[in-house]
Amino acid sequence: MDFEEKTMKSERIYEGKVVNLRIDTVELPDKKYSKREIVEHPGAVGIIPVTSDNKLVLVRQFRKSIERQLLEIPAGKIEINEEPKETAYRELIEETGFIAQKMEYINEFYTSPGFSNEKVYLFLATELEKGEANPKDDECIEVELYDISQLIEMVNRGEIKDSKTIIAIFYAEKLMNEIK
Amino acid sequence: MDFEEKTMKSERIYEGKVVNLRIDTVELPDKKYSKREIVEHPGAVGIIPVTSDNKLVLVRQFRKSIERQLLEIPAGKIEINEEPKETAYRELIEETGFIAQKMEYINEFYTSPGFSNEKVYLFLATELEKGEANPKDDECIEVELYDISQLIEMVNRGEIKDSKTIIAIFYAEKLMNEIK
Repeated sequence: MDFEEKTMKSERIYEGKVVNLRIDTVELPDKKYSKREIVEHPGAVGIIPVTSDNKLVLVRQFRKSIERQLLEIPAGKIEINEEPKETAYRELIEETGFIAQKMEYINEFYTSPGFSNEKVYLFLATELEKGEANPKDDECIEVELYDISQLIEMVNRGEIKDSKTIIAIFYAEKLMNEIK
Repeated sequence: MDFEEKTMKSERIYEGKVVNLRIDTVELPDKKYSKREIVEHPGAVGIIPVTSDNKLVLVRQFRKSIERQLLEIPAGKIEINEEPKETAYRELIEETGFIAQKMEYINEFYTSPGFSNEKVYLFLATELEKGEANPKDDECIEVELYDISQLIEMVNRGEIKDSKTIIAIFYAEKLMNEIK
């Protein structure tokens, strides 16, 4: 089946520091027209930092979009001219103070393909050493360490509310089971 | 720690059919000001439809945001005055033609809390009967059935690129293991 949606017109609504918004008028396979609201995002990384005693390093921060705190894996936006792996090293130190000797690519996924191109690259960070956290000026972050078993319980009880963090915990569980 | 970010000003940039965009000026805990770009979304449901012979029903569709096809669980936006469970029943029939006799709430999560309030409610649909698919005018969807074991392999090979679908497959795997 030919699925493609041809762009007939593209209107830029907003260009910001994290996202841009544009509205595309598209031609559907049946030749009808429709509109697509698209939030452009430069992409992000999420890091699964595992300490030598098998604890996961998570961060708690306030998310204005939902007016509440969330417990998440360390993560951050990919800056211009940055490779995802560089972002992963940088964000891990900035947000948690941990320096990873080893940073392995796990996978990548789109968070909200219905309206955004945001892609998250997931990395496993191991052989951690304690350095100095250095959060961005507008970030207020608390670092918390958890056992995988604790986090699995928290996912099951619905206490982990962030999609990339749920994915990260499932991966961490699988990795632990492989090591056993 | 007091994390809250007080809204000092809120500017509405765009109101659309799927998303709105607003820019909040916030006061940080250290009294400095910053801007938050926020994409408002009404919320969505994702459905894990499992047939009587233990196959998952997925949908393939073109996603304009990323200019490619994605294989995803059936999903859709919550309409005004709709309960998430109603959305789940409705979207499953519309997109796949399957009517679920049983629709169980699994969990809920934010897809991109860094810039959007979009929340996905995940449901498990079982006791499926075949009805008539009825996709929206601007949707072009192909239905595909997979064994869980196949999907786990596809996740491991990085072939599943949608976050809610990765979460759904991990849950389905756990549920299958519990039944065994």
